[in-house]
Formats: sequence, structure tokens, C-alpha cells
Amino acid sequence: MKAIDINKANKEAVSRIQSAQPVLVGVGLARDVVPGMHDKLILHAGPPIAWNRMSGPMRGAVIGGLIFEELAGSREDAEILASSGKIEFSPWHEHSGVGPMAGVATAGMPVWIVQNKTHGNKAFCTMNEGLGKVLRYGAFSPEVIERLRWMKDVLAPIMKESLAIKGEINLKSLIAQALQMGDEVHNRNRAATSLFIREIAPALVETKFPEKDKKKVLEFMHANDHFFLNLSMPSAKAILASAEWIEGSTILTVMARNGTDFGVRVSGLKDKWFTGPALLVKGLLFPGFSEADCNPDIGDSAITETCGLGGFSMAAAPAIVKFVGGSVRDAFNYTNKMYEITNDESASFQIPNLDFRGAPTGIDLIKVCELNILPQINTGIAHKEAGIGQVGAGLVTPPMKCFEDALEAYVETYCGD
Amino acid sequence: MKAIDINKANKEAVSRIQSAQPVLVGVGLARDVVPGMHDKLILHAGPPIAWNRMSGPMRGAVIGGLIFEELAGSREDAEILASSGKIEFSPWHEHSGVGPMAGVATAGMPVWIVQNKTHGNKAFCTMNEGLGKVLRYGAFSPEVIERLRWMKDVLAPIMKESLAIKGEINLKSLIAQALQMGDEVHNRNRAATSLFIREIAPALVETKFPEKDKKKVLEFMHANDHFFLNLSMPSAKAILASAEWIEGSTILTVMARNGTDFGVRVSGLKDKWFTGPALLVKGLLFPGFSEADCNPDIGDSAITETCGLGGFSMAAAPAIVKFVGGSVRDAFNYTNKMYEITNDESASFQIPNLDFRGAPTGIDLIKVCELNILPQINTGIAHKEAGIGQVGAGLVTPPMKCFEDALEAYVETYCGD
Repeated sequence: MKAIDINKANKEAVSRIQSAQPVLVGVGLARDVVPGMHDKLILHAGPPIAWNRMSGPMRGAVIGGLIFEELAGSREDAEILASSGKIEFSPWHEHSGVGPMAGVATAGMPVWIVQNKTHGNKAFCTMNEGLGKVLRYGAFSPEVIERLRWMKDVLAPIMKESLAIKGEINLKSLIAQALQMGDEVHNRNRAATSLFIREIAPALVETKFPEKDKKKVLEFMHANDHFFLNLSMPSAKAILASAEWIEGSTILTVMARNGTDFGVRVSGLKDKWFTGPALLVKGLLFPGFSEADCNPDIGDSAITETCGLGGFSMAAAPAIVKFVGGSVRDAFNYTNKMYEITNDESASFQIPNLDFRGAPTGIDLIKVCELNILPQINTGIAHKEAGIGQVGAGLVTPPMKCFEDALEAYVETYCGD
Repeated sequence: MKAIDINKANKEAVSRIQSAQPVLVGVGLARDVVPGMHDKLILHAGPPIAWNRMSGPMRGAVIGGLIFEELAGSREDAEILASSGKIEFSPWHEHSGVGPMAGVATAGMPVWIVQNKTHGNKAFCTMNEGLGKVLRYGAFSPEVIERLRWMKDVLAPIMKESLAIKGEINLKSLIAQALQMGDEVHNRNRAATSLFIREIAPALVETKFPEKDKKKVLEFMHANDHFFLNLSMPSAKAILASAEWIEGSTILTVMARNGTDFGVRVSGLKDKWFTGPALLVKGLLFPGFSEADCNPDIGDSAITETCGLGGFSMAAAPAIVKFVGGSVRDAFNYTNKMYEITNDESASFQIPNLDFRGAPTGIDLIKVCELNILPQINTGIAHKEAGIGQVGAGLVTPPMKCFEDALEAYVETYCGD
């Protein structure tokens, strides 16, 4: 039996999480900047999954990605190609990145480049498309593809030059401010999006692009309160990646869903996934949809919860209950409950409503199992069929099986003879 | 004795407050748009006051205003002119407007034009200069005057054209959103300022001005989280002005301070002021200052409290306690207390932390006197000497004398034989 000091290992993991400094450093095409990216690779949310097990919205996003890349001309072509074995699929998390909902990214898509200035590691994420019919919810109609092309041709170059003019943007500071302004930066990003716009706008004006394009970029961000989600997610990933692979640590570094399976990763168990079936989200559905329309839980956005944000910081964002359901009291209760399964309180992310108490930080596998308290996640809900889009938002947890399996593996790894 | 139905009168007053719709319609020079404005008139905050009774910060702002208008070349010249009788002084409130702190406005200063779309009345306010050495806190050094000239020559024209391109901006909606984002729009305007920037930025890009000026305007707004204060104040004024002069009503329509006197006006008592000595503000002082440096309470910004915002909505803005002092619990308590002296709950301004309860609306003179509960105001603190500036922020109430005198006048007016 190895002599493992769990407390010491977890202290190190949490210390790295606390000291991480995610900063937005640039924009690039996935093929140029994402490790291991190539033209026949499609990245997706959650743990590994083959085409034949993918849910409707993830298939829809894959179809859209192949059409965007002009590797397929129609849904049918794309489905044949996707199932042919000629396209490789891999989780974003195995390429230092994250993707909301289906999380599909292809080589030609632009991505944000976030760097953890303390530990040097980078994290990547595509740019947020807005609400309604969008690729990440499995839509792939011409308007979706056209928007993705505009994002590549106009939005990304303008953002890239704006950042070059302005210099890096401290995302940890923006997130901390947003928590004082009613966001939890998972399903409520209105304050963070606003702060980002005012931060970037002066430099954006100075870029060399035509005024109509600059105006359209400002309008695009203004029209989408979720714009910052694709910055809060890689921020959380950049923070947590620095705590991966600490021998003996039981701190969670990943919670992610591909729409079929929920997967977690634990610091002391390296890059191994522990999975269970993704659950159905309980929440508020848009008019005209019923529970029968809902896909199970999907997306890498639970990286925010893994980092103490999202569902863990709902006490900072009472207004979110109008979007995900429940009462303001519930929002407070969720956060208070999460202190029971975490090892520390964030030194940076404070919740004014709880007398500026730090957000619950460092989910401990052992506490989850011992107390039988599952991490609380809030999330969007995708239609279960490809091509439709978002149908609502609500609350969900991982299945306990992920944690039971991870604990078993931990015991085998560290407590064997 | 006249047969007055107080309840009916107050219901009408509150109904007008509830139905008011303040909208930003434009920008103009005070001499062109403010009723009664002329080149030898200086508008100021609070109830009427002569030069010889003005506090240091108000004298400082008058000096700055005269230098800005090139009516004086130095402090000494300005003081001689101000006391000569050749300059007229009048409260902003008697010209359909409001001014933060000293609230000084001269004919050549640009003002926001806010219109209450329901009742047609307009309200005016200068543009916010930012923090530190600024006219409204009594500073008048060359940097202060230079900034005012830039605001007139660059900021105001760009805002005017931006609004012409964009069209009107619904300020009631922005304030309602900001209350869901941790602002109370008196001493915390970070969310509202952010929302305003993202609202105006696309049109601003489209204006005909040089890019360096557009950039500077965006940077100026970004650097000043109080930028929206000068929009929340005329919004509150536009709302409350529609409830002025309702026979028999005991609802407050104005609370305002000139740095020497605190004054209130009551709907059923028309344009009569009831005054008492302005009190000292208790709060957090900037390093290097003590209570001996503080001027008594000053400014028209208490119009926000009169409208149910500011100190009345502090439960929406727990993070403000870091700026004005006290605990988060205090912030909740202030709001809860204010329901006791108000007649209604806002249908538009909701407080998420109180389960979306409407802000306490319609301060009733009779309740204030009967319950002996004074309206709670949060506010900035000016140095008591001319030329220095802000020294802190904190909490204050009106003196009870204003209310006692108003009640006496009410009884005389309505309950005499």
C-alpha cells in the first residue's frame, strides 16, 4: 500500500485552483491552436462517445460541423461520412478545451485562447452563437451555418485585432465582478457579457475593419446575454486543468456530459473517465415543448460547477430562478448545500448575499460519496432530435454511479497491496 | 374644512408613479432645453439657497461653473461675481431637473433629456464627470474645467448623434434590469452603466465622429461606474414630477439637499419646500480624511430614494455595503423598513433577494410622522471646503423637521375651517 496523504494532496489541488489566473490572450482557428486538432477530427462535449451512441443534438451538431467545413453538402451526406470511420471524434477535455451543449468544434472554427497565467496552461472554447437555432443545441439549418461562417470571417478577426490592441483581459476578475452583479456565469451571464462588452468596445472601435462590421459585432454581443459563457467555461477549465494529476487527490477536475453519458475525472486518477447515464433536466420548458422533447443532460458547461460557479454559486444569482425554475430560497439552499461536498471557499469568487463568503470550491469525491450529496448543476435543455435546438433550462445532477466507480478506482489505485 | 379623500389622492399619486415611463430622448445644451435657463442663471441641488449660505462644495462648483462659462477667470473673480447679485441662483427642481451633489449647471452645459412617455413631462440632468476631482464635489481646478469642455465638445455631440441613430432608450427597463444585477442606481450603478454602454455602443460606432473621439467616449464611460447615476436621477425625477400637485396627497415628490439645508416637497402642497438642517453622513471615508473634513449631506440624488430606489432598494444591491458601510443584513433591513413608510410596491422595480417583491414606492408623509421612521438615503460625501472633492460615501436621513413642518402645513391647508 502506498503512503498517500490525501489531505496534503487535496490541499495542493485546491491551492492550485485558488491561485490560477485565467486570462483571455487571443483568438485563433482550432486547427492552428488546439493541441492535436486536425481537419478530420471533430471535438465534442463530455466523455468519449462513438457516432452510433450519440444523442440527437450531438449528431445534429456533428452534421452542422461537417457542412460548415464543406466535408458534406447535406444531412444525409454528413450522416454517411460521420458513420464511415473517416471522421475521428474526441472529447474537448482531451484537447485542453470545453464546449457548451453538444460542444462540437471543427478545425476551421475560431476559438478563444485562455491562459492560466499562474501555471502556464491554456484552455480553448468556441465562440457563443447566441440563442435559438444554434449548432450547440443540435441545429444545422442554413442560417446556423451562415452564422458560423460570419463568426469565422468577421467576429473572430475583429475580436482578435481588438485583443491585440487592448492586450489581455483578466477573466478571473470579470467573473468575480459578475458574481457581485447577479450572475453565476453558467446560465446567467448578463453582467459578465456586459462587462466584457465595455472592456473590449474601445479597442474594437480602433480596429481596421469597416464600421458596419464593427457595429454588427457589437450588436451581436449585445443581443446575446450568454456571450460570456464561452469565456467563463474555458476560464474554469484553465483553472481546473492546473489541478489535474496530483497523486492521491480526490478533488474533481472535470464534470462533463455528451448527452448520453455523464463523465467525471478526479485529480489523483489522471485522465480516466468515470461515467454513468446522463439524467433528464428538471426545469422550465419553452412554450410548446414537453418533457418528452428533452434530451438528457448535455455539455461541458458543468466545468463551471466543478470550479464552484454555476449551480454552486446560485446564491449570487437569485434572478436565475426565473430561467431555470425554483424559488430564490432554493438558490440559496443549493449553494449552502455545496459547501458540504467541497474542501474550500474561493478567495476570489465571493457571494455578496452570503456576506461575501467565497464560492464552494474543490469538490471532494469522498465527501460526495460519504454524504450522498450530488453536485448541483443548472443547465440548458436541448431537444432530443437533431436539427431543432433549445427547449428550456433547468436543474440536474450527475448520476451517483460516476462517483461510486471513481471511488472504487481510487481505492484500487491507492489502497491496494 | 375641505372634503379631502387622502387615500384617493394618494392612490392617484402612486398610480402616476407606477405608470410613468421615463425614456432617454436626447441631449441638448441647458440654455436650449431647460425651462427658464439663461446665461446668468446657475442651477444647483436642493432647496433654494443664497451664495452667503452655500456650503464649501457648492461654492466650489459655482466657481467652476463661472470659470467654465468664462464669466470669471479665477476663483477670486468668481467669488466676487457670485456675491455681486448679478448671478441668479435657482434649484434644479424648479426647472424640471436634478443635479448630483452640488448639482451646479450653467447655460452652456450639455444635459440629458428624459421624457416620461406616459404623462409627457420632461426631466433634465447634466452628464456624469466621473470620480475624484469633479465639479459636483466642489472641485474647479483646470483639469475639472478641461473635462467639462471635452464633455460639451465631444461627449455630448457623440451621445446626441448616437441617440439620433439608435432612437430612444427605455430607462425604466434599464433600471429594472440593473436592480436584478446588484445595483440600486444611486451609489451602485455598475450594472446600469454597463447596460447603457452595450445599448449605445453599436450606434456610437456609426456616428460621423473621428475614431479617436469615439474610443475616448467609450473609455470615459467604461472608467466611470457612476455614469448612469445622471440617468437614474432624471428618470426618478420624470417619474415623480408626474405625481406633483395632486390635491390632498401626502406622497413625497422631492427630497433634496443643497449641502446646508435638506428640503422635501409633498404632492398636495404643490411647490412649497419644507427644510431643515442637512445632517452629516455616516459611512466609509477615503484614506487620509476624517469626519472633520465632511460636508453635510448634499445633492438631488435623493430623488432616487424618493422613487423607491437607492437606499430604499439596498436589498437588491448587497455589494454596496463595501462602498457605503454596514453589513449585508443592514442592506436588507433598510429596504424592509422602508415598506413601513411607503404606500405601494413598484410594479416595475423588483428585488430578486426579496422574492422579486416590488421596491417600496410612494413615501407617505403621514406614515413618516406617525411611525417616526425617516427615509433611508445612501450618498457620497463631499469635502466641506471648496475645491477638494469626494471624501467618502455613507448613509444618512433627512432631519425630522422637514416632515413635521410639512405635516403642519398640510393640516393648515386641508384641515382648517
